[in-house]
Amino acid sequence: MEYRKLKDQDQDGASAPEDVESLRGKPISAVGPVERTKWKRKSIVTLALTFLTSSQAILIVWSKRAGKYEYSVTTANFSVEALKCALSLAALARIWSNEGVTEDNRLSTTLDEVGVYPIPALLYLVKNLLQYYIFAYVDAPGYQILKNLNIISTGVLYRIILKRKLSEIQWAAFIILCAGCTTAQLNPKSDSVLQTPLQGWVMAIVMALLSGFAGVYTEAIIKKRPSRNINVQNFWLYVFGMAFNAVAIVIQDFDAVMNKGFFHGYSFITVLMILNHALSGIAVSMVMKYADNIVKVYSTSVAMLLTAVVSVFLFGFHLSLAFFLGSTVVSVAVYLHSIGKVQR
Amino acid sequence: MEYRKLKDQDQDGASAPEDVESLRGKPISAVGPVERTKWKRKSIVTLALTFLTSSQAILIVWSKRAGKYEYSVTTANFSVEALKCALSLAALARIWSNEGVTEDNRLSTTLDEVGVYPIPALLYLVKNLLQYYIFAYVDAPGYQILKNLNIISTGVLYRIILKRKLSEIQWAAFIILCAGCTTAQLNPKSDSVLQTPLQGWVMAIVMALLSGFAGVYTEAIIKKRPSRNINVQNFWLYVFGMAFNAVAIVIQDFDAVMNKGFFHGYSFITVLMILNHALSGIAVSMVMKYADNIVKVYSTSVAMLLTAVVSVFLFGFHLSLAFFLGSTVVSVAVYLHSIGKVQR
Repeated sequence: MEYRKLKDQDQDGASAPEDVESLRGKPISAVGPVERTKWKRKSIVTLALTFLTSSQAILIVWSKRAGKYEYSVTTANFSVEALKCALSLAALARIWSNEGVTEDNRLSTTLDEVGVYPIPALLYLVKNLLQYYIFAYVDAPGYQILKNLNIISTGVLYRIILKRKLSEIQWAAFIILCAGCTTAQLNPKSDSVLQTPLQGWVMAIVMALLSGFAGVYTEAIIKKRPSRNINVQNFWLYVFGMAFNAVAIVIQDFDAVMNKGFFHGYSFITVLMILNHALSGIAVSMVMKYADNIVKVYSTSVAMLLTAVVSVFLFGFHLSLAFFLGSTVVSVAVYLHSIGKVQR
Repeated sequence: MEYRKLKDQDQDGASAPEDVESLRGKPISAVGPVERTKWKRKSIVTLALTFLTSSQAILIVWSKRAGKYEYSVTTANFSVEALKCALSLAALARIWSNEGVTEDNRLSTTLDEVGVYPIPALLYLVKNLLQYYIFAYVDAPGYQILKNLNIISTGVLYRIILKRKLSEIQWAAFIILCAGCTTAQLNPKSDSVLQTPLQGWVMAIVMALLSGFAGVYTEAIIKKRPSRNINVQNFWLYVFGMAFNAVAIVIQDFDAVMNKGFFHGYSFITVLMILNHALSGIAVSMVMKYADNIVKVYSTSVAMLLTAVVSVFLFGFHLSLAFFLGSTVVSVAVYLHSIGKVQR
């Protein structure tokens, strides 16, 4: 216990998630400076993820308006992983020069620690492969609707794998979060989703489980060593991300890269998107470390709504009645989740 | 206190609403037989209202399919009020022969007691008049959507006029109940509601307030004298309902009734609809007496969903994705309302 307490005093990421949780609902003035710092850190990473995710979607709309993708998606994905690796190393270099190399922030690792790091990257690879096949059964807008199953799968796997409990109110909030997000995305053609054949549903559920499992598993890896510096953990996660994306380049785009070059077709907006994806990825890791997958889901859901509102001003989009109703339900879900703990 | 306690022992409707409320969340086995009787009575009237309201909507669909209304709506409304009066008197006659005439079940009244009874009937009359004008600004499906504002107005007026508190969770549940009901009713043309001009919005809000106020005021009247027999209270409510509807006949349909007769164009289904409306009306009064306006709103909301599901089997209706999402949200709202008290 003394060790844990000492660890909690320093600021380099040594938070026990339970302590962060227990802060909810307490007035800020009644808690110590350590908990306040944790609460602040948690809020900052959550806000950063929300902001980055919503601007990510806006960049995608912008790039689509500007024309078709001319760059290879696999090289862009590789660049994102490489940039994340570089940013993690840069952060570590700063920490090393300030605090010196310690047990917690050294880059070298054991097979025991690093052995599980390829798993999330592998899961995402399988999910991305499945994505090509599901479009045989569902169209793209229908797939957007079905992707909301991720919310439910994340909640269920979070409960089963991380063995963390949500209160009854938080479960209720999670269900209406899923319903609210889907409602906000409804359009006059959405009903076609109901005609999805069984194979489509099974694939959508498998993909939701893969995606949820990858998220929850990443949280488990990162939280297993609470005192380990997050930048080291990120470095190892992203190294395997780079490796798997390199394989994807070789399989899918080897000739194009060889003939036209790695960065062929990259524009200013491509660079912005890569930068944004890299920062979002780091924000996701931070949220896993200092908060959890549930907070991540809320954050990205709110980001989806923000994107739509911002698109009204940027691109002259119209908001539907369904969007207002869905947003109301999502807002109530966020509120219920936050008061859910107190009411127990 | 002794008086109240004695009153609570008898079964003829002498319930104090606070006591019924406090039962929520307690296991049935832990409460006394009096409270259990109250809980049972509350459940029965709520289920009756839900069943009657949903079959009411089904009868309307059925009658529309069968052809246009050929009977005069004003005479049908008058018949409903007259039937409710007759049923109340029949119930009273039975009570008088079993228990004798007491202070609580005698029909004769004071001006002080009866003076407020015309007010709800008057409010509904004004609301029905306004209904003709709002269609200058909104179409019928749009009006169905806007009618969900009733949910919010009822909640707000319930809080202000009856000074009864809802917990934070119950408020959250009420907001998503409104959003969920609206979502379930969405159709591809619903977005036109967003183009409603300001006058339409103002009228919709005024009508929602009138309707909410009439409901809450009826509850206030009925609950003001908890020991008074509900059938006496109903009798007086419906007498004024008859009076106001008689005025409406004279204004709107006097010539038609004189030339063609009062019951011209009545069919078997018309009689069923009148019977159903009369029983629903009595169920609403019972819910006001033994439960409250909030329960009434939940009951009619669930009835709306039941109607849609039953219509799939009866009329081959298709359920939309929006309906499933709205139903999920409404179900969660019902759940949250029921656990809302316990969690305080």
